[in-house]
Amino acid sequence: MKITRLENCEKTPVTADGALKAFRQVPIGKADGAPNFSMRVFTVEPGGHTPHHSHDSEHLNYIISGSGEVMEGDTPRKIRQGDFIFVPPSARHQYRNTGEETLVLICAVPSKYE
Amino acid sequence: MKITRLENCEKTPVTADGALKAFRQVPIGKADGAPNFSMRVFTVEPGGHTPHHSHDSEHLNYIISGSGEVMEGDTPRKIRQGDFIFVPPSARHQYRNTGEETLVLICAVPSKYE
Repeated sequence: MKITRLENCEKTPVTADGALKAFRQVPIGKADGAPNFSMRVFTVEPGGHTPHHSHDSEHLNYIISGSGEVMEGDTPRKIRQGDFIFVPPSARHQYRNTGEETLVLICAVPSKYE
Repeated sequence: MKITRLENCEKTPVTADGALKAFRQVPIGKADGAPNFSMRVFTVEPGGHTPHHSHDSEHLNYIISGSGEVMEGDTPRKIRQGDFIFVPPSARHQYRNTGEETLVLICAVPSKYE
């Protein structure tokens, strides 16, 4: 059993095209022996965003803190602390921090997309 | 894309043997078309607990609020808001609310264990 907290997890900038002021951590993943899926965490500073893209792996998201928008294709939808979001496989999406606080979200994905 | 919050999700008592004052919700799961894994949420009232059991599906957990213990076999380990916990396949475990606040945790599992 592993118990950890974000402050103990390595934090690296998201370098994918279209990302801005976004950082990635993996509190539970393949390195821990998780056999099917992983919990990543993204931290997005005000004005920042994740890439606007699609892929065949789904996202199961939970907003730990902050607020902003998730793009559903080209349509922005409001998100805030406490929201759960399901991004289906192949759906184009992007998380944007349009608030003044840091946006922190869990992004669980199949292991192959970790 | 689905966006939801706990207050919009049906909440049912956990009826498994050994559960006490524990409730289950499924903000993202098979009913939403999630193809590989699901996010369930357990709410455990003070003095309550989930079953002390093991199974071949892993848990990827995040503590949304509250505090308590997770049993690693027969060993209690402290948990609190903000902790991430990986319960490997076949590891015997139980969540116990030993605090005074309600304990709320995400419990992500493979679809077959939803």
